[in-house]
Amino acid sequence: MNAEPEPLAALARLVRGQRIAALGTLRNGAPNVSLVSYLAAPDCSAFWMRLSRLAWHTQDLLQDPRASLAIAERDDGRADPQTLMRVTIRGEALPPDREPSFLKDDWLKKFPESRVTFDLADFSFWRIVPRDVRFVAGLGRTHNLSAADLRAATCRP
Amino acid sequence: MNAEPEPLAALARLVRGQRIAALGTLRNGAPNVSLVSYLAAPDCSAFWMRLSRLAWHTQDLLQDPRASLAIAERDDGRADPQTLMRVTIRGEALPPDREPSFLKDDWLKKFPESRVTFDLADFSFWRIVPRDVRFVAGLGRTHNLSAADLRAATCRP
Repeated sequence: MNAEPEPLAALARLVRGQRIAALGTLRNGAPNVSLVSYLAAPDCSAFWMRLSRLAWHTQDLLQDPRASLAIAERDDGRADPQTLMRVTIRGEALPPDREPSFLKDDWLKKFPESRVTFDLADFSFWRIVPRDVRFVAGLGRTHNLSAADLRAATCRP
Repeated sequence: MNAEPEPLAALARLVRGQRIAALGTLRNGAPNVSLVSYLAAPDCSAFWMRLSRLAWHTQDLLQDPRASLAIAERDDGRADPQTLMRVTIRGEALPPDREPSFLKDDWLKKFPESRVTFDLADFSFWRIVPRDVRFVAGLGRTHNLSAADLRAATCRP
């Protein structure tokens, strides 16, 4: 454990406070970044996405599950955008063996407009189980965290 | 050319209106996404970044220049975040042969707080020359653009 409580609390606030993330996948061996909506598991043990099989990132993940998910504070116009908090979660993105009971309800609470995707055959849930986490709390305040560190935070109220 | 003028104008507004982007690089062959500040060339022909040699993404690019840069509208809390505009630019990120004359002044105009990096030996400019561009103007409004398409836009006033 190389993180004190304060960075973990800030990280949890960041993850709770945002809705969209940048998903990095491999496309023919090259990086491909796209925008996704995400929901964190209550204990930050997984990050859920609802992806269409027709989307490039999903095709990428079906070829190679390695993924990187970056969540950043919204740019509020401050003088130095390098002080914005951001976190990069790396791991494998896979369809779950089964969906946890909270998932559909909590997803729809966060993304009510995505209800239509539950009637479309090409959409399904995917999850990233973090392998490692790089949290930049601000300029020069970088914390390398393990998945276990992250599970000490609370990503949902 | 598979884009009408309207998407190009919207794309140019997006690129002009934001300051930060998600940069995808390869780290030991896996995707790695981090946050960077960017400046578009006036004719959108290149996207400039100012990177520290000490940062992971720079170490990644020194190993393999393939990169993906995603720029998204700020999440304004709208009902459906999937309608946010975003663009993914793919290409190689490399140090330039030489820096164009506008670069330092225009960079400092956009990022005045980064003046200190010009006194630090580990920072330098890098640029991505777009190879292809994927612009999502909103739900179901995806445009695949070439670098030539993009140069028909005007990324800076």
